[in-house]
Amino acid sequence: MPTTNDLQVSALGLGEMGRALAEALVKAGHPTTVWNRSPGRADALLAQGAREAATAGDAVRASGLVVVCLLDHPSVHEVLDPLAADLAGRTVVNVTTTSPDQARELAAWAAEAGAAYLDGGIMAVPSMIGTPGASILYSGSSAVFEEHRALLDLWGTSTYHGADAGLASLYDLALLAGMYVMFAGFAHGAAMVAPSGMKAREFAAMAAPWQAAMTAAFDGLGEVIDGGDYTVPGQQSLLFSDLGDMVDASAAQGISTEVVAMVQNLIRRQIDAGHGEEGFARIYESIRNPAARA
Amino acid sequence: MPTTNDLQVSALGLGEMGRALAEALVKAGHPTTVWNRSPGRADALLAQGAREAATAGDAVRASGLVVVCLLDHPSVHEVLDPLAADLAGRTVVNVTTTSPDQARELAAWAAEAGAAYLDGGIMAVPSMIGTPGASILYSGSSAVFEEHRALLDLWGTSTYHGADAGLASLYDLALLAGMYVMFAGFAHGAAMVAPSGMKAREFAAMAAPWQAAMTAAFDGLGEVIDGGDYTVPGQQSLLFSDLGDMVDASAAQGISTEVVAMVQNLIRRQIDAGHGEEGFARIYESIRNPAARA
Ligand SMILES: NC(=O)c1ccc[n+]([C@@H]2O[C@H](COP(=O)([O-])OP(=O)(O)OC[C@H]3O[C@@H](n4cnc5c(N)ncnc54)[C@H](OP(=O)(O)O)[C@@H]3O)[C@@H](O)[C@H]2O)c1
Ligand SMILES: NC(=O)c1ccc[n+]([C@@H]2O[C@H](COP(=O)([O-])OP(=O)(O)OC[C@H]3O[C@@H](n4cnc5c(N)ncnc54)[C@H](OP(=O)(O)O)[C@@H]3O)[C@@H](O)[C@H]2O)c1
Repeated sequence: MPTTNDLQVSALGLGEMGRALAEALVKAGHPTTVWNRSPGRADALLAQGAREAATAGDAVRASGLVVVCLLDHPSVHEVLDPLAADLAGRTVVNVTTTSPDQARELAAWAAEAGAAYLDGGIMAVPSMIGTPGASILYSGSSAVFEEHRALLDLWGTSTYHGADAGLASLYDLALLAGMYVMFAGFAHGAAMVAPSGMKAREFAAMAAPWQAAMTAAFDGLGEVIDGGDYTVPGQQSLLFSDLGDMVDASAAQGISTEVVAMVQNLIRRQIDAGHGEEGFARIYESIRNPAARA
Repeated sequence: MPTTNDLQVSALGLGEMGRALAEALVKAGHPTTVWNRSPGRADALLAQGAREAATAGDAVRASGLVVVCLLDHPSVHEVLDPLAADLAGRTVVNVTTTSPDQARELAAWAAEAGAAYLDGGIMAVPSMIGTPGASILYSGSSAVFEEHRALLDLWGTSTYHGADAGLASLYDLALLAGMYVMFAGFAHGAAMVAPSGMKAREFAAMAAPWQAAMTAAFDGLGEVIDGGDYTVPGQQSLLFSDLGDMVDASAAQGISTEVVAMVQNLIRRQIDAGHGEEGFARIYESIRNPAARA
């Protein structure tokens, strides 16, 4: 049973993610106006009670709050640029994935147009929207975040990270970096074991619980990084674990070594700089300081 | 209250890990003879009921089952080579970390000496030994694994992977590769957010649950890899997500891009080979086929 909710919302972009976001609004009882460039994407939402606008301008003019979920930064400008005058006095919540600088540029553009701007980074797939497991990072106008917190929470767990509109994108990208790099590590492991007859799914069954358990080490690595003293007693030293066996075993399996060589290079630069007796967390210094790169 | 257990065991090597393994044996009531190159490491074990041998040879001759947990492959040879004659008719369980080829070499050496050989790879830190969370991979003699299963299970969750003695090391290294690469991804994310004032521990608090949740995707990636068809509908294509924003945002933060560029290179080789419309799992092909490397 949908609860009624007076706040009028418009949603631009009904791709996979846009539809999931709009559906959560409609289900919560918000009078919701939707628009999509190509026709046909709104059908299921209309059956649930949404109204469809014929143009993006009609959609913007229908509500004080405009949710934008398009493909990328250029598509946001393509849709919003002709509507700058209409946006004056309205609020834009843009959850389109952009770079930090692109989010900052959009915030400045919105300020120029007289619109309040909140940027969001969605750490979830569409099927997770509406569950607490969907983490959505926000930055930009804290007033917008405070005022619309209840609505934002319809999508998942909302956190606010600061007035710099680029921060949500930055943290989003930093978390996605961890994910993509982890996936590359998984693919490397699967390729290492494949020549010995283990299927990738069998390897996944071992690797998923193992990697999930090892995320518990992030806190300790973070503590050492924040402290800046990498000579922590009881840690394996970089010299002992420069991953030589891992790189050699990968090569012996006939696969590319580049995934693990990436880590080895981070380690070796620290060894070369005289830190071979310090702990693994020291690879952070290789990343933080590209000047140290050979 | 220790249970009594008739099986006599000897343990060579009382470093951090060797002591944890020996303690689990002593606690279970096994008559346990221990040896370490440097003196003083056995004290706590002696108080718990272990016996100390003056030489590695005395330790080997005290038991039919010899557990070896030394630093690396050369140290195993240094200790066992003079004892080849004593090892005839005995069983060696070697849980020292070695490469797959080193494990195979040790298995062949043991066969020559007339000893049964089981190789183990420990996926745990010493404090986890004796809990089910400690996963220990075995390969080599299946007869040894079957006969001593109850003893091996004192250390954690034991799994047997095949007669090729190198497999436990191979799977061990493949899982460790995933872990080290994931840690590098975490360090990269922490370095990305640091210039904006976020501490590494704060980032860890976001990244650990996120990465742990994302390990759920390994099974799906594995399924696509095993199927060999990367044109899975509904996936983001490689062209769309070639990680350009992530690499650029990293550079904009003044840090090294090499961690994420590693993944981007895997993606780009697939795009260059004409697979830009296929899914992300296709990076597996860049790793599997180093010949495709530019
Ligand atoms: N899907 C996910 O798992 C996920 C997760 C986190 C974040 N996101 C982010 O959410 C955003 C939307 O993703 P999605 O999965 O919904 O993508 P999608 O299914 O590909 O939909 C893209 C949407 O953008 C519209 N669009 C593209 N170019 C346009 C243009 N020039 N003018 C007007 N409309 C344009 C498309 O309209 P047409 O229908 O007319 O093509 C469609 O509505 C992206 O920034 C994405 O990175 C997605
Ligand atoms: N600790 C972990 O978290 C962990 C996890 C998984 C696997 N492992 C593996 O377990 C093995 C042992 O690790 P550990 O943590 O116990 O290491 P450790 O604390 O450094 O102990 C090393 C042991 O090897 C002995 N040793 C080294 N070189 C020797 C030589 N040439 N001759 C005789 N003995 C020698 C040392 O004897 P001295 O006391 O005389 O130096 C000591 O007993 C390693 O292969 C390691 O990779 C450890």
